[in-house]
Amino acid sequence: MSKVKESIKVGVIGATGYTGSELLRLLLQHANVQLSMVTSRSDAGVSIADYWPNLRGRCDLTFVLPDVDRLADNCDLVYFATPHAVSMHMMRELMNRDVRVIDLSADFRLRDIPLWEKWYGVEHACPEVVAQAVYGLPEVNRDKIRDAKLLACAGCYPTAVQLGLIPLLEQSLIDPQDLIANVASGVSGAGRQAKVANLFAELSDNFKAYGVSGHRHLPEIVQGLDDVSPEKVNLTFVPHLLPIIRGIHATLYCKPKDFSIDFQSVFEQRYKNEPFVDVLPVGVYPETRSVKGTNVCRISVQPVEDSGVLVILVVEDNLTKGAAGQAVQAMNIMYDWDETLGLNDIALMP
Amino acid sequence: MSKVKESIKVGVIGATGYTGSELLRLLLQHANVQLSMVTSRSDAGVSIADYWPNLRGRCDLTFVLPDVDRLADNCDLVYFATPHAVSMHMMRELMNRDVRVIDLSADFRLRDIPLWEKWYGVEHACPEVVAQAVYGLPEVNRDKIRDAKLLACAGCYPTAVQLGLIPLLEQSLIDPQDLIANVASGVSGAGRQAKVANLFAELSDNFKAYGVSGHRHLPEIVQGLDDVSPEKVNLTFVPHLLPIIRGIHATLYCKPKDFSIDFQSVFEQRYKNEPFVDVLPVGVYPETRSVKGTNVCRISVQPVEDSGVLVILVVEDNLTKGAAGQAVQAMNIMYDWDETLGLNDIALMP
Amino acid sequence: MSKVKESIKVGVIGATGYTGSELLRLLLQHANVQLSMVTSRSDAGVSIADYWPNLRGRCDLTFVLPDVDRLADNCDLVYFATPHAVSMHMMRELMNRDVRVIDLSADFRLRDIPLWEKWYGVEHACPEVVAQAVYGLPEVNRDKIRDAKLLACAGCYPTAVQLGLIPLLEQSLIDPQDLIANVASGVSGAGRQAKVANLFAELSDNFKAYGVSGHRHLPEIVQGLDDVSPEKVNLTFVPHLLPIIRGIHATLYCKPKDFSIDFQSVFEQRYKNEPFVDVLPVGVYPETRSVKGTNVCRISVQPVEDSGVLVILVVEDNLTKGAAGQAVQAMNIMYDWDETLGLNDIALMP
Amino acid sequence: MSKVKESIKVGVIGATGYTGSELLRLLLQHANVQLSMVTSRSDAGVSIADYWPNLRGRCDLTFVLPDVDRLADNCDLVYFATPHAVSMHMMRELMNRDVRVIDLSADFRLRDIPLWEKWYGVEHACPEVVAQAVYGLPEVNRDKIRDAKLLACAGCYPTAVQLGLIPLLEQSLIDPQDLIANVASGVSGAGRQAKVANLFAELSDNFKAYGVSGHRHLPEIVQGLDDVSPEKVNLTFVPHLLPIIRGIHATLYCKPKDFSIDFQSVFEQRYKNEPFVDVLPVGVYPETRSVKGTNVCRISVQPVEDSGVLVILVVEDNLTKGAAGQAVQAMNIMYDWDETLGLNDIALMP
Repeated sequence: MSKVKESIKVGVIGATGYTGSELLRLLLQHANVQLSMVTSRSDAGVSIADYWPNLRGRCDLTFVLPDVDRLADNCDLVYFATPHAVSMHMMRELMNRDVRVIDLSADFRLRDIPLWEKWYGVEHACPEVVAQAVYGLPEVNRDKIRDAKLLACAGCYPTAVQLGLIPLLEQSLIDPQDLIANVASGVSGAGRQAKVANLFAELSDNFKAYGVSGHRHLPEIVQGLDDVSPEKVNLTFVPHLLPIIRGIHATLYCKPKDFSIDFQSVFEQRYKNEPFVDVLPVGVYPETRSVKGTNVCRISVQPVEDSGVLVILVVEDNLTKGAAGQAVQAMNIMYDWDETLGLNDIALMP
Repeated sequence: MSKVKESIKVGVIGATGYTGSELLRLLLQHANVQLSMVTSRSDAGVSIADYWPNLRGRCDLTFVLPDVDRLADNCDLVYFATPHAVSMHMMRELMNRDVRVIDLSADFRLRDIPLWEKWYGVEHACPEVVAQAVYGLPEVNRDKIRDAKLLACAGCYPTAVQLGLIPLLEQSLIDPQDLIANVASGVSGAGRQAKVANLFAELSDNFKAYGVSGHRHLPEIVQGLDDVSPEKVNLTFVPHLLPIIRGIHATLYCKPKDFSIDFQSVFEQRYKNEPFVDVLPVGVYPETRSVKGTNVCRISVQPVEDSGVLVILVVEDNLTKGAAGQAVQAMNIMYDWDETLGLNDIALMP
Repeated sequence: MSKVKESIKVGVIGATGYTGSELLRLLLQHANVQLSMVTSRSDAGVSIADYWPNLRGRCDLTFVLPDVDRLADNCDLVYFATPHAVSMHMMRELMNRDVRVIDLSADFRLRDIPLWEKWYGVEHACPEVVAQAVYGLPEVNRDKIRDAKLLACAGCYPTAVQLGLIPLLEQSLIDPQDLIANVASGVSGAGRQAKVANLFAELSDNFKAYGVSGHRHLPEIVQGLDDVSPEKVNLTFVPHLLPIIRGIHATLYCKPKDFSIDFQSVFEQRYKNEPFVDVLPVGVYPETRSVKGTNVCRISVQPVEDSGVLVILVVEDNLTKGAAGQAVQAMNIMYDWDETLGLNDIALMP
Repeated sequence: MSKVKESIKVGVIGATGYTGSELLRLLLQHANVQLSMVTSRSDAGVSIADYWPNLRGRCDLTFVLPDVDRLADNCDLVYFATPHAVSMHMMRELMNRDVRVIDLSADFRLRDIPLWEKWYGVEHACPEVVAQAVYGLPEVNRDKIRDAKLLACAGCYPTAVQLGLIPLLEQSLIDPQDLIANVASGVSGAGRQAKVANLFAELSDNFKAYGVSGHRHLPEIVQGLDDVSPEKVNLTFVPHLLPIIRGIHATLYCKPKDFSIDFQSVFEQRYKNEPFVDVLPVGVYPETRSVKGTNVCRISVQPVEDSGVLVILVVEDNLTKGAAGQAVQAMNIMYDWDETLGLNDIALMP
């Protein structure tokens, strides 16, 4: 273990959105991280503590323009907290320097490049690097993450749905052709974009579904489930928009092949060594608030024997376990640190 | 039409809860109704306008103790807006007088009395009257409602789920053995009870499922679906608690036997004469706020051909179309009035 | 009264914002109004019921481009529900035709044109018409409103603050030099603009003051108070942003000259014939929800004798009594109709 | 520094309410604290992690019945997180043992015992200990806190109002006879009591004042202000209830004797060494969310020269700086630890 680095210099590209805000919060509280550069095209020159009022007194940096050379010179590790179709334009250069990269955007999540281009509506600018990217779901991919040079963080919905279905699919306990993921996300998942649809007066005291005809997280989820399932999966995925700031709740419906199996025990065994997956006792329902601001994912296993359906309930914070927290967890793995370092905050209650 | 009554005297039993509040609002705005008595055991003697501050200047009545004789003497029609297991104790006497009754509680919804007793945990006090009760879902039962002496209003979840599935089940277009109802309700559905679980600080900025192992609305829904389906239905029903005041959203999953059918047209045909069912155009998502305070139910038909699943989205206001509004709609039918009388308010936006 | 018009044709200029939405809702429910034209530069050609989902089935019109000739030909009355600095560009032409105008924007509220230009930051395009405008606060100006050709509706904060202070200032019961208006508004007051500051994720579960250094409603309030006060007023005005959709709450602090006066009675007398001002009984606190979607303003008089301060609490719905409802009330006065016509909805509870 | 204790054993009496929950969260994250006992009369025997779902995996304790002997034997320091009129019944015995006490309740805050009895409506059970209690506002009382045996934590509103006015009163810069505190609190301030008034459906999308005629925090605030002001203060205090979970916002109005003073600098100087008071730059408005879950109090100084009023805006988290966080800050002082130990969490954004 003599090779364990005690501290690294970290850069963040694009921290003016909500994922970036959460990432800054976590990195500034991380004992082994020195935040050395934070870039923004739109807000270069602005003090970060002026931009994010929660960081007053906690961060002296100013947003600077992104520049690969300066990033490479000043950082051991660079995070992208950008919208899709940004990181792919800088990745080739960064890979050519001795910088490790954790990409919170979607650019390197899908191995099937034409599929990516279909869902994201642009040509991929860096297809030859896609194969090097390691998909950042620690509960499945921990060993590969350790040595990743380019880590493609899992999406928020994909994290929740995969953690809820993988224990069953890995062991072929359910019909992989009959999966339903009814998911609901807090509004921060829509990002910090000035759109009428995201206004308080539009979303408060309101609820609706969206994206039934197709959501970009669907192919990512299917890729991840197919990776662990002996048979191909068929998933119906319906997202909804919740009038809460943070939190994802997944209600997953599947058909067990044999209802006599102890599904509770299957989940407890699968996740018994996972620091951030909490399998709840029988009959306890997970609530999104119980994980707000934390990297914990809580899962409840609810067999409905009368109807022959197994219901799995999963909650996570879309910005933490669903984005920045999982990215920090991956960093901890990549540098052989305690996997929970900097991720031990307890959720507020209430 | 000479028998149409131009105006009736109405009593309300138990109007200190949210369903009762909504009922009072609607009755006070109804041209053909004279509100003559409102009873409450807990708040007898209290001015209604002091109890419900929205009614200041609109209602001069005071809560009085419930009394069958006085009710029968003063009312053509009596509503129950009580918790379950209350109306069954007064119903026999009321039926013996010349009073029509609309019961918003659950006491007379299930025809199978042992089933009712199992779910509600008490012995039914008036089983011999159950068979006379007409189930108050106008879109299915309009003709029977017209002549009902005892009308058992449909529950809030049951209204949304039945309206979403009936057009498909009636025509055997889907597999009745494979139905999933993922539903979410605003907090007013839990009633005006002083429970820690219903506090603002517990529910705000939070989301969770509940009642997976069994909810009292499940047998009611199944009874209603079985009534229209040639084959027996098998339904998985998972309710969730939304941090909104009013509104139910149902996301229904079913498996069409033949995906080439024009499901949009099936719904439009089925509901073309229904004043309170709005089938949305293709691709439009219903939002709960669009029906808040109204008796409208909006439905969206969303086929997901890739996965072979038909998704039906339904919204309603749990207190209006899901309770008091539907009760007033039934009254309008019972007295041969325009079915929309007193139910034409447009929802606030925003 | 033979001249009372039984029904008029109405046009609305600019109904894509929240004030416009509320105005459409009220006009579509108004017995004496035929909505003949609704204009929008940005959304001409769009069906209104597609734009505002609460109006599905209730409005067949499509937004058209604004055109003074077509408006004059088709309308008896035209409303402006536009941002400031729009109506002043069309007003001269409209005044030259036989069309009455109700302007919900700020363009004709201030009689002092340089003051208006200072606060709104543009040159006034139609200064010669300003003197013809009647300020639309019925509780003060009813007689002038009756004959108004151009009615300048009162702003949302100004309505609440004026109704709370006028009974005291008219009779010189308080020190006019020592007035504090601590006000808080729901988010719809900020309009339907796509700004990051108005996003759900920014405003929900949050509270803050704004505009202490100067808010455009301050000179309007001072103009109105000076009109009724024998001595000049000095007012400190601090607005706050509430995480609610609709509602204004004003907490007004003033210093009575003589604490032995029965202030409760002063308010009750002043407003005893006002259909939309409700003076609450002693000790009752007004809540914003009790007036949501209604044209009612509720006022509570709370003397704090220990400190020598009289506290007046006022609530209204910023979009109704604070904008579109008051505009409809003014229309009712202008056409000699019952002042409450189309304004009798009871607020939802809860 | 040899006397500095490196770690202490701590007990908490009454941790089933929101203040207790926040205290447990902070103590479990505190490096120098070993949580040894948590008592509850109502929930003895219940696992704390079952009661507070955010503590799953972070706390192995079970609520036990309160017992002075066991507390004294097992704890160096005992916190009370109880309603008022509880700690006064156990305090005498605790004081007789070698246990330090931090009381988050109101029992020992007021030095004037008849005044306490008037506001709290019960006889004080332990008046002879009141004089030993140190009032726990570190920014005023740090030296006395260091040696306190019994620390009476400041209330939530009192903390915000005192921190906002003390710099001005200490230096006689304002008229102490003309102070207005318009304050608003999140709902958690009302505690975790099952009352209809605290239900989500009653408070969401709503706002109102309360307690104008008298609030228990008024005498506490006045006591604190009188302590630092050369002349007696006269304060009008109007609390409001915000539809947010956590957060207090105080809008303070006062009259400077001399408006030429640099008030911004007065505040910056007064608090320049305070780790938890952040004086914002000119023109920046504090928001409650920026301090949620933290011990920071942010203050903005806003002179309104036109009206001659100085407005001070203050935000804090009512459960943290307003209760449990300030209690932990006081503990850090009492044990000569770094005052920020265990209090460095950054607020979530959003």
